[in-house]
Amino acid sequence: MMNLYAIILAGGKGTRFWPKSLPERPKQLLPILSEQTMLEETISRVSPCIPPERVIVVTSQDLVPEVTPLVNPQTTVLAEPLGRNSAPAIAFATAYLLAVNPDAVMAVLPADHYIAQPKPFLSALQIAAATASRDNMLVTFGIPPTRPETGYGYIQVGETIDIQNGVTVAKADQFHEKPDLQTAHSFLRHGNFRWNSGMFVWSVATIAQAFEIYLPEMYALMRELSTAIHTKDEPAAILHFFQAVESISIDYGIMEKAQNVAVVSGDFHWDDVGSWASLERVYEKDAHGNVRHGDCHTLDVKRSVLYADQGQIAAIGISDLIVVRTDDITLVCPKDRAQDVKRLLENIEKESENEN
Amino acid sequence: MMNLYAIILAGGKGTRFWPKSLPERPKQLLPILSEQTMLEETISRVSPCIPPERVIVVTSQDLVPEVTPLVNPQTTVLAEPLGRNSAPAIAFATAYLLAVNPDAVMAVLPADHYIAQPKPFLSALQIAAATASRDNMLVTFGIPPTRPETGYGYIQVGETIDIQNGVTVAKADQFHEKPDLQTAHSFLRHGNFRWNSGMFVWSVATIAQAFEIYLPEMYALMRELSTAIHTKDEPAAILHFFQAVESISIDYGIMEKAQNVAVVSGDFHWDDVGSWASLERVYEKDAHGNVRHGDCHTLDVKRSVLYADQGQIAAIGISDLIVVRTDDITLVCPKDRAQDVKRLLENIEKESENEN
Repeated sequence: MMNLYAIILAGGKGTRFWPKSLPERPKQLLPILSEQTMLEETISRVSPCIPPERVIVVTSQDLVPEVTPLVNPQTTVLAEPLGRNSAPAIAFATAYLLAVNPDAVMAVLPADHYIAQPKPFLSALQIAAATASRDNMLVTFGIPPTRPETGYGYIQVGETIDIQNGVTVAKADQFHEKPDLQTAHSFLRHGNFRWNSGMFVWSVATIAQAFEIYLPEMYALMRELSTAIHTKDEPAAILHFFQAVESISIDYGIMEKAQNVAVVSGDFHWDDVGSWASLERVYEKDAHGNVRHGDCHTLDVKRSVLYADQGQIAAIGISDLIVVRTDDITLVCPKDRAQDVKRLLENIEKESENEN
Repeated sequence: MMNLYAIILAGGKGTRFWPKSLPERPKQLLPILSEQTMLEETISRVSPCIPPERVIVVTSQDLVPEVTPLVNPQTTVLAEPLGRNSAPAIAFATAYLLAVNPDAVMAVLPADHYIAQPKPFLSALQIAAATASRDNMLVTFGIPPTRPETGYGYIQVGETIDIQNGVTVAKADQFHEKPDLQTAHSFLRHGNFRWNSGMFVWSVATIAQAFEIYLPEMYALMRELSTAIHTKDEPAAILHFFQAVESISIDYGIMEKAQNVAVVSGDFHWDDVGSWASLERVYEKDAHGNVRHGDCHTLDVKRSVLYADQGQIAAIGISDLIVVRTDDITLVCPKDRAQDVKRLLENIEKESENEN
């Protein structure tokens, strides 16, 4: 499809892979799963359908020097002067496309997701793009859940719209925030729930209309910004947009409210790789269920994530533990406490403030 | 006492503090407990009684370049060309003293022990030295046990010989090897058992006689070596001694068999600091029972040993764990598995042999 653009959301701060990730080197700019950074992987995954000149990377201004060398010179990098969540980031890209190609279809893809099977993903992407351009729908990718995950949002699917090559397109009935474990179990049993992957496909016209209905102030700012694209006023207009715009997620601002949402059910082993613990879902494991990266030596170690970026890790008699070693920090944390890295970092910041 | 010499045993390999300790930097040459190395601490602890010219350090030839800068130029360093356990090390020092001062009294002190209260230790040392020089006894320091420790040998004490300044000198009834936990509990309850500290005091004449009785071959080699001390034949004689001598501990070779063994019960908070786990007995702990050394950040961490030699340790939600970070290795290990570091090192050696 000649009008299909990839909008790569690469603005995340990503403390969840600390100490490897840092504000100046967030997850999407790290080679966590392979030799390539996750941003490069995301772009090369869609490259059979979307050439570099139709890739738009939305990132924070601070990260532009890191992002630019990773992308093709023909790729557009849109720099956010302020971080304002996903709806403004998408509005920024929409404003840009309203100016340069208002007939475009946008595949909105976070830069830090793992997809094990690129081919089924590309099939699903093409079906989603066809649905988006034909039916005036906001299309989202729903992943059939394989475990009672409490870290993801869910989408309940309703009537089937279409089935192509084994890929089902259905109406979205309802969005659900991250559930508790019991609810997650019930979603898993129910069968009609999908993980909300945060990947979307829609035409510029359809998403612009949704902004107009559900986020009218943001829509007005977006239109204003659009008229300044590729003019001398562009930098000032971008700054004004981000200073004035509401910080809100696309899910909360639009997807949960819109009536024209379709779900493409994609079974391509997707993972948002949200923490060190999630590596065990995407890495090959040793005979004892351990993820090993770098120089690791073990004795009676089970179901642990060992990640040595520098030097060696030597572990004895531990289970279900995360051990990460970078050149200046060692993190040790049970897998089920991985989300608390953020709290520890806040403590460390407070400590260093108190010292100063 | 003008004839009291300190014989500092500093030949240990010490893998138990790996990765901080290495063959070329064993525990006694590390500043584990303070700014000083344990060898320096051992020497300075006895310095009020024993001046540098009456200190003899017995160490392995490989460690001489490390040891020499740590000791006073007047101190004698005896280099073992081969490691042959404690009886030969002590016989070497005895041979030396037979040549230079056969009237000497020897305080044999391992270079890697912790003593919290140097003053009571020095009192006990003087009482031991007096007993040794007066009564033709092999005097050993027995530590009143404070827990059912299975990592130490025990000495059962018999009739009291003397009490001076609250320090009891008693006959040794029997030596016991490291007990199982149940036996250790019964020793603790019994009250007449002492930890075998591996620190001894005896006159040159008394220990020479004991060698003659219990290790006659070693005695003959020791006499032969003694005649070569301070002659041009000394280096060859030392090498010959170590090539010919049996590798045996002083406990097994002499102490367990001798009838003239006295025990000085010393209550000066002694610890052999045998592993990372033992640091919690000799370091001050934080409010959650953690030992912290270097730059450590914690969240819900309990009863753990965190030792950062370089960089930082960040730990979340762990208990009873050892985490050590050096500039090239991170060790993670439950406290009760600390003794398995040796096994892990053997595995690593095998792996690297297989690779070559």
